[in-house]
Amino acid sequence: MNHEKVIAQQRLNVLEHIKATITVKEPESLYAPIDYIMQLGGKRMRPVLTLMAAEVFGGDAKNAINAAMAIEVFHNFSLVHDDIMDDAPLRRGKTTVHEKWDINTGILSGDAMLIMAYQFFEDYEPDMFKGLVTLFSKTAIEVCEGQQYDVDFETRTDVTLDEYLKMIAYKTAVLVAAAMQMGAITAGASTEDAQSIYEFGKNLGIAFQLQDDYLDAFGDAESFGKQVGGDIIENKKTVLFIKALEFSKAEKRQQLLELYQEQPEESTEKVALVKTIFVESGAVDFTKATIAEYTEKAFTSLENLSISDANKSLLEMFGRQLMNRKI
Amino acid sequence: MNHEKVIAQQRLNVLEHIKATITVKEPESLYAPIDYIMQLGGKRMRPVLTLMAAEVFGGDAKNAINAAMAIEVFHNFSLVHDDIMDDAPLRRGKTTVHEKWDINTGILSGDAMLIMAYQFFEDYEPDMFKGLVTLFSKTAIEVCEGQQYDVDFETRTDVTLDEYLKMIAYKTAVLVAAAMQMGAITAGASTEDAQSIYEFGKNLGIAFQLQDDYLDAFGDAESFGKQVGGDIIENKKTVLFIKALEFSKAEKRQQLLELYQEQPEESTEKVALVKTIFVESGAVDFTKATIAEYTEKAFTSLENLSISDANKSLLEMFGRQLMNRKI
Repeated sequence: MNHEKVIAQQRLNVLEHIKATITVKEPESLYAPIDYIMQLGGKRMRPVLTLMAAEVFGGDAKNAINAAMAIEVFHNFSLVHDDIMDDAPLRRGKTTVHEKWDINTGILSGDAMLIMAYQFFEDYEPDMFKGLVTLFSKTAIEVCEGQQYDVDFETRTDVTLDEYLKMIAYKTAVLVAAAMQMGAITAGASTEDAQSIYEFGKNLGIAFQLQDDYLDAFGDAESFGKQVGGDIIENKKTVLFIKALEFSKAEKRQQLLELYQEQPEESTEKVALVKTIFVESGAVDFTKATIAEYTEKAFTSLENLSISDANKSLLEMFGRQLMNRKI
Repeated sequence: MNHEKVIAQQRLNVLEHIKATITVKEPESLYAPIDYIMQLGGKRMRPVLTLMAAEVFGGDAKNAINAAMAIEVFHNFSLVHDDIMDDAPLRRGKTTVHEKWDINTGILSGDAMLIMAYQFFEDYEPDMFKGLVTLFSKTAIEVCEGQQYDVDFETRTDVTLDEYLKMIAYKTAVLVAAAMQMGAITAGASTEDAQSIYEFGKNLGIAFQLQDDYLDAFGDAESFGKQVGGDIIENKKTVLFIKALEFSKAEKRQQLLELYQEQPEESTEKVALVKTIFVESGAVDFTKATIAEYTEKAFTSLENLSISDANKSLLEMFGRQLMNRKI
């Protein structure tokens, strides 16, 4: 079976389990927002990866579904709390939980979701339970730390590349990595294999996020699906900004810092100027090279897995397609 | 040893472990607020009860300290998020986390504390880990539900006694109960004993909360330490209000409902009128009888415990002193 079919099938599996397990109990005012956000859509990428990883290691997706649910509920918990922190009115084109209800509901329903995520592991026997819960907690704390670093970086101009890479790894990549590792664990994969699939997910996640930074500035508006230059308009310090600052001589450096203190109504000129600095400083070339580096690092992790070549190429094809977005 | 010495000693034990395990790591902006709230003081009642329960069942407090820490960190997490929801400026006489930092910091540091609470269980071997974590999640979800019921009840006038008792049980008593049960579990107590100590903690917690309702209206201002009549001034629907509404004839019922829609600047008359209705309706007698009922229920749970009489009387003396506040 090709990877697209596998993904489509596992997505149905996830949707079915969300329907079956996320119900509106009493008190309704606590659980209705949870049901709302869980049904709001999204690609369900993370839980699908858990199920796919389980099958790739010879396991049954049925045994991985509770871990997949924990990951998806946690991801949605983080969306609810992040949307409060970002004062975001919309999520997936629909009203955010704290807008539809209120901030207090968003906080408390989010808290309940974090606990519910842990409860999904209770179907596993003690040894596996402990392994999964320990990985889950470590990952969840890293996601909080990543979110905090992101906030801290907003008011700093001296963020290093290493700090930035750690932030995006924690904020987004480790959850993808843990999702895949949990699939491997439920399938009884070896510690080495579980670690390798984690590295695959983490490095692919970092590559994906770096590519997102690149596409935000240089992507094709239509195929990228977001406003091109959005990060520049909002003065977001991505890898492009960090490296452009580092690579530029004093004058250009000063110009870039000044441009990143403005938020003009008409942003076309600012975006164009910044993009020129990104290109001419070598930041774009560096970013492209780093994306390639992390993508290849991810695929290297696949080589040592003790799984069939067919399953290896399933994972590789999934990764290649993920990274093969229109530029 | 008498119970006061035991409590004082275990409190030092808890304080020492808070100092040793709660440290300000990177990112500091995430962990400094956690350190702040954890060092803010408080009686440390819940973790002390975990350690006391462990010793009562013949266990070593050393083996219970991580469960005790999980309980204390969770309790402080709930304070941080509750203070945001209540817009409270002060906690234990000091600035609340969201006031000292900001709401976003309060949300995110709180989230991290909830996850850290789970991590404290990781020192237990898999079977005990699973037992403790499962009890912890069940309790934590109930605390969220209790908080939500409390919010919901603010806008209702048809709350039944059973609903009210469930709310106070979930909001406060189950955490005390779980704290004691965890001590028992770490000491290897039988399932029956672990269940009985849970019931002891839960019923004592309910009795304590009902007594708090009574003392808020009829206690001695000095020894109670809070403004007498505070619940009445804020139109808080305690057991006294619920039963007074139920027991009163139409006219008094109407008067009480009207009094509970006002918030006059000078509240002396309102407080006096409401207290008269509480007494004359029989709500006060009912409340006193219910406090006695739950207190005795708690002590009955102690009878069947397979522990020494000295240890039984240690628990009983602790309970009697807790309920023997000045009225």
